[in-house]
Amino acid sequence: MKIVITGGAGFLGRRLAIRLLEKGSLTDSAGHVRIISEILLVDVVAPEGMSDPRLRILTGDVSDIELLRQAIDGATTSVFHLAAVVSGQAELDFDLGMRINLDASRQLLEICRSLGHKPKVVFTSSVAVYGGKLPEVVQDSTALNPQSSYGAQKAIAELLLNDFSRRGFVDGRVLRLPTISVRPGKPNKAASSFASGIIREPLQGQETVCPVSPDLRLWLQSPRKAIDSLIAGHDLPGSAFGNNRTINLPGISVSVGEMVAALEKVAGQSATQHIRWEPDPLVQRIVGSWPGCWDTSRATALGFAGDADFESIVRAFIEDDLSATNA
Amino acid sequence: MKIVITGGAGFLGRRLAIRLLEKGSLTDSAGHVRIISEILLVDVVAPEGMSDPRLRILTGDVSDIELLRQAIDGATTSVFHLAAVVSGQAELDFDLGMRINLDASRQLLEICRSLGHKPKVVFTSSVAVYGGKLPEVVQDSTALNPQSSYGAQKAIAELLLNDFSRRGFVDGRVLRLPTISVRPGKPNKAASSFASGIIREPLQGQETVCPVSPDLRLWLQSPRKAIDSLIAGHDLPGSAFGNNRTINLPGISVSVGEMVAALEKVAGQSATQHIRWEPDPLVQRIVGSWPGCWDTSRATALGFAGDADFESIVRAFIEDDLSATNA
Repeated sequence: MKIVITGGAGFLGRRLAIRLLEKGSLTDSAGHVRIISEILLVDVVAPEGMSDPRLRILTGDVSDIELLRQAIDGATTSVFHLAAVVSGQAELDFDLGMRINLDASRQLLEICRSLGHKPKVVFTSSVAVYGGKLPEVVQDSTALNPQSSYGAQKAIAELLLNDFSRRGFVDGRVLRLPTISVRPGKPNKAASSFASGIIREPLQGQETVCPVSPDLRLWLQSPRKAIDSLIAGHDLPGSAFGNNRTINLPGISVSVGEMVAALEKVAGQSATQHIRWEPDPLVQRIVGSWPGCWDTSRATALGFAGDADFESIVRAFIEDDLSATNA
Repeated sequence: MKIVITGGAGFLGRRLAIRLLEKGSLTDSAGHVRIISEILLVDVVAPEGMSDPRLRILTGDVSDIELLRQAIDGATTSVFHLAAVVSGQAELDFDLGMRINLDASRQLLEICRSLGHKPKVVFTSSVAVYGGKLPEVVQDSTALNPQSSYGAQKAIAELLLNDFSRRGFVDGRVLRLPTISVRPGKPNKAASSFASGIIREPLQGQETVCPVSPDLRLWLQSPRKAIDSLIAGHDLPGSAFGNNRTINLPGISVSVGEMVAALEKVAGQSATQHIRWEPDPLVQRIVGSWPGCWDTSRATALGFAGDADFESIVRAFIEDDLSATNA
C-alpha cells in the first residue's frame, strides 16, 4: 500500500506520517487492512528529522502538475491532500490561494481519476466554509456561505471531491477540521494562528498578541484528535458517507476568554501575563465569520471522537510538544 | 451602456436581448439608469431572425478565452452569463460540463476582474445545486448537495461569483432559476427537457415522452417571469444582497400530474393523449434530486415575482409562442 501526503512537511502532514509509520497499515477501498509499504511526503520543503525506510520525499510546488504526476501513480492506494495556502495568506494573495487551494486540488483529483483504480482521497476542509448569518449550532444541513477566499476555495474543492466521488473517479472523503489548537512551532499566516499562539507562546515564557476579543467563540480540536480523525476518515468504507462525502468533525466550543482561563488554570497567571490584546480587524472579521459550534451527530455515529475539554488540550500540548525535543 | 449576453443565441438569451432592446435602458452599478447603446450576443451559433442597430453578434466557444477577451472590454457595463452545458449533457460528458460550466465562468470572471471597473455580472444558476435529503421547502439556509455534475459546476460558479463580488472584482449576482416551463422550440439535453415537452408537443398535436412519474414535484417558472427576474436581478444595487449574492427565485411547486391536468383543462383530453409515459431512470434520478419547492421570502422582499399558477403559464405559452410566427 502506497500513501501520498501532500503538505507532508507541514505540521499535520508530518504527524500523520509518523502515526501511519507507527500504525503500519490502513484499510483500502475494498475493506482490506493492508500493510503500508511506502509513504511519500510531497511539499515545498523536505520535512526535517524524519527517517524510515518506508518514507520517500518529493519536494516541489503542489500546483505543478508534473510534480503531482510523479507523486501519484498506478501504485498509489491513498492520497491525504493536506497542502493548502492558509486563510490569512489566501485573503492577502487571491491568486496564490486559487492556484494552490483550488487548481492543485482539481489537478490532483484529475490525476487520480486518470489512473482508473479509484484511489482513496482524504481532503481536509475547514470551519471557514461557513459564514454570514449562522445558527448557534451549525448543522450538516446548514448552507455554506464563506466570507473569505480560503473558505470559498475549500468549499469549491469539497464540491469537486464530492462530484468526483459520486461519479466513481475517486473514493473521496472531506473532513472539515475545527481550528487546530494547540499547534506547535511558529505562528503562521492562518487567520486563526493566534488560537495556538495564545497558549504556545505563554507556556514558553514568550510574548504573544491576541488579535480578537475574548468573547469570540472558536470551534477547536487538538492535533491528536485531528490525526485520529484523518485515519478514521480514511478507513471508513465509501458507502458510510451516503450521498455526501463531507463530515463536520467533532470539536469543542470555547471562547477565547475561556481558553485563556484554561491556560491560567494549567500554568498560572505568570503565563497569561504574556498575552497582549491588540485587536486586528481583518483577523476578527475572518475568524468571527466562522461557526463557533456545529452539530457532530453524523461524525459521532461514524465513530469520530473529539476532545474532552480545552484544559486537557493544553495538558496534551505540554505532554506531546513542550517536553518532546522534536516538536 | 454596453451589455454582453453569453448564450445569446439560446432561448433565454434571445428573449432577454429582445426585451432589453424594447426596454432601452438598465441601471448601472452607481444606481444610474443608462441607455443601452450595444447588446453583444455571444454564442456558438448566431441567433436567427434578430435585427437592431444596437445588436452585435460574436460566434465562438465561450470557453475560448480569446473570444471572451474580444467580447468583454473596458466599455462593458454588464454581462449576463447564460451560456451553459445543460444538466443531462453535463452528466453524460463530464469534461465538457467542466469546461463550459466551470472554466468558462471562471475565465469570464477573471476577464471582468482584469478590467478594473467592476462590471455587473448576472449569472444564472439552478435548482440542481440542491440534492440529497431535502426539507419539504428549501430555505436560503439549506446546504447545497448537488447530485449531478451540472449542479456541482453551477454551485462552484456560484461560490466563485460570490467571492469575486465580496473582493470587489465584479458586482455579481446569482439568480437560481426554477426549471423553466414552457420553453418553445425543440427538446434539449437538459434532464428537465420533458417539463416543457409534455406541454409544448401535445399543444401542437405531436407525440411526446414523459420520462418521470406523475408524482414528481417540480419547481417551475415561466419564460416571461425568468426574463423579468434577470432584469430585476441586474438592476438591484449590490448592497441589497448583503453577504450573499445568490437568490432563490420565486417559482410554483407543481407535480407532473398537476401539469398534465392543467394542460387538459386548457386544451382538452385530445392534447394529453399525446403523452407517452416511459420512465427513464437517469432523468428520474437527476430531476428527482432537485427540490420541488423553496422559500422565496428573500426574493419577494427584493421585489422578484413568480407566476400565479401553472394553468396561466400554459396560457401564456400559447399566447407568446404558439401564436407568434417567430418563436
